[in-house]
Amino acid sequence: MNKRRMLRLADVGERRAIEILRNVMDKRRGGDVAVGIGDDCAVIDIGREYLLVTTDMMTAGSHIPPGMTPFQIGWSVVAVNLSDIAAKGGRPLGLVTAFGLPRTASLDFVREVAEGMDSCAAEFGTSIIGGDTKEGKELTITGTALGTVSKKDIMLRTGAEVGDIAAVTGTLGRAGAGYWSMRHRLGLKKAERALLEPYPRVGEGIALAKSGVATSCMDISDGLASSIYQMSSMTRLGFEIERARLPIADEVMTACRLMGRAALADEFSLYYGGDYELLVTLRPGGFNRAHNALQRMGTALTPVGTVCKTKANMLIEKGGKKSVLENRGWQHFISRGVGR
Amino acid sequence: MNKRRMLRLADVGERRAIEILRNVMDKRRGGDVAVGIGDDCAVIDIGREYLLVTTDMMTAGSHIPPGMTPFQIGWSVVAVNLSDIAAKGGRPLGLVTAFGLPRTASLDFVREVAEGMDSCAAEFGTSIIGGDTKEGKELTITGTALGTVSKKDIMLRTGAEVGDIAAVTGTLGRAGAGYWSMRHRLGLKKAERALLEPYPRVGEGIALAKSGVATSCMDISDGLASSIYQMSSMTRLGFEIERARLPIADEVMTACRLMGRAALADEFSLYYGGDYELLVTLRPGGFNRAHNALQRMGTALTPVGTVCKTKANMLIEKGGKKSVLENRGWQHFISRGVGR
Repeated sequence: MNKRRMLRLADVGERRAIEILRNVMDKRRGGDVAVGIGDDCAVIDIGREYLLVTTDMMTAGSHIPPGMTPFQIGWSVVAVNLSDIAAKGGRPLGLVTAFGLPRTASLDFVREVAEGMDSCAAEFGTSIIGGDTKEGKELTITGTALGTVSKKDIMLRTGAEVGDIAAVTGTLGRAGAGYWSMRHRLGLKKAERALLEPYPRVGEGIALAKSGVATSCMDISDGLASSIYQMSSMTRLGFEIERARLPIADEVMTACRLMGRAALADEFSLYYGGDYELLVTLRPGGFNRAHNALQRMGTALTPVGTVCKTKANMLIEKGGKKSVLENRGWQHFISRGVGR
Repeated sequence: MNKRRMLRLADVGERRAIEILRNVMDKRRGGDVAVGIGDDCAVIDIGREYLLVTTDMMTAGSHIPPGMTPFQIGWSVVAVNLSDIAAKGGRPLGLVTAFGLPRTASLDFVREVAEGMDSCAAEFGTSIIGGDTKEGKELTITGTALGTVSKKDIMLRTGAEVGDIAAVTGTLGRAGAGYWSMRHRLGLKKAERALLEPYPRVGEGIALAKSGVATSCMDISDGLASSIYQMSSMTRLGFEIERARLPIADEVMTACRLMGRAALADEFSLYYGGDYELLVTLRPGGFNRAHNALQRMGTALTPVGTVCKTKANMLIEKGGKKSVLENRGWQHFISRGVGR
């Protein structure tokens, strides 16, 4: 019996599935395609600029938290796609969407999802320009976002160099705190809203790209630790993250206190995911410039560590003690201890 | 009780769902977006050329015929998207794909689907440049294709004028015959393959666009009758289709004979759908030019009727007797007599 044939996604997780897809498909790229599978967006040379393309699917069973309204479902599909455009410094150009809908779905449900998509697109100066609907067993919505970015400004997952500063926008852990708040009725409404209506850093991504000091960028929707490992595996450089510098959201500390579980702070801020913030590396000496650019739009940018020659990704405690950052985050298919 | 709230997709069908999405979303378009929801592709002005974007979803329950191999599933997702690019005269630029996969899916299944996608893309000179995988209850695959077309060559669903010739590429009804062949074991292998491995008219679309005589175009994947009604509703012009001219595939006649049901010929060639051919309107006197362009690539182009001032879409019998072409075709959600 062929042992390999027995392997199911439940055994190996999402990253292995993506690896398989990449192995089969990525060998073909070339021509106009500057960057293929493996970054937040595919990047196509269209002359003056790069065209950015990204696609993200939500399925009822595994990505839609109970309590999410149809409006919020639509909003989220658009938001998560725009977050990938933002991470490359792109200006959104439009989105297309494909709906898999159960026969029993009501017209009002469809209308409210559409209104959520439309509102999120409009919030970021863009629109839904095409779509498809099909019958499916469960609600499934795919969004595909397009964007453009000037060739000199684009931020990829690669590009960081030794000595660069690693920084994150906004705060960490709010989405995880929101999930626990909903699950245990903690009443942390702002955190719940952050989970249910993610707000992609579109303006911030454009500003970071234009600052001229960003060397690489990705969004941290899979969790900060997971994002660091993904960037690290592409550059073969490591990150040293200082725990004391992590801009942990107030709601995380509140959730820890209310639950009586201090360990949740790490879980939410490093591993849980769902925060649509940007992780960016900046040239040494370039932090102030990037920081000021975001300050003008009221968004915090916090230095959290540095890029190092060692391949390991380390977490540095206040006293200087180092430990290896765990390589885990939001993965589909594999059962996890702390559910989303 | 609010009666409207009770309406489900099962009652109203796919077109009503699309209408709702269009009403909510299409009001926003503008800026760079030249054509939004309602054509085969969205059309974006990117300077020198138009960017074409289209998205199409396949779900296990309703779009994957039993007997379709994983390779053919992957091939089809790419093919149906490239067909929309072809219908606008576009050159494919790349595709992104999103997989909703059950936890029990095997790695080999995923690999074979990916190989089918990759093979179809390569067949038409393009590639898969990005993707997403998520956990879902049933297999769901969304493809999004990008293409470019020069501004003067683009073919839309609108543009036909009174007196234009309506023509179709290739033959009609082969996919329907293939479906019946599989279902009733008729052994029509070529027709079955046409159903399971659709071959989009990419080169033909480019040639028609460049011929300078095409005034509008769309693919007939929902069926010829349905496509005629869609073009007609956008132009407010009617079509007169001559039944004797329809290039019905040989396999359709064979299936009718083997089943002893002559009425299936109409069903397959006009209403069933699944043929990834192009319906094109041509300027009067322009037919030979378009015909010769396709003949060079070995593809038939057959005149089937004319564009008329009357809004009705008519079917003209050999003796001149006219009847109204039925406005039906492949629609999701609504139960149908002849299943796909």
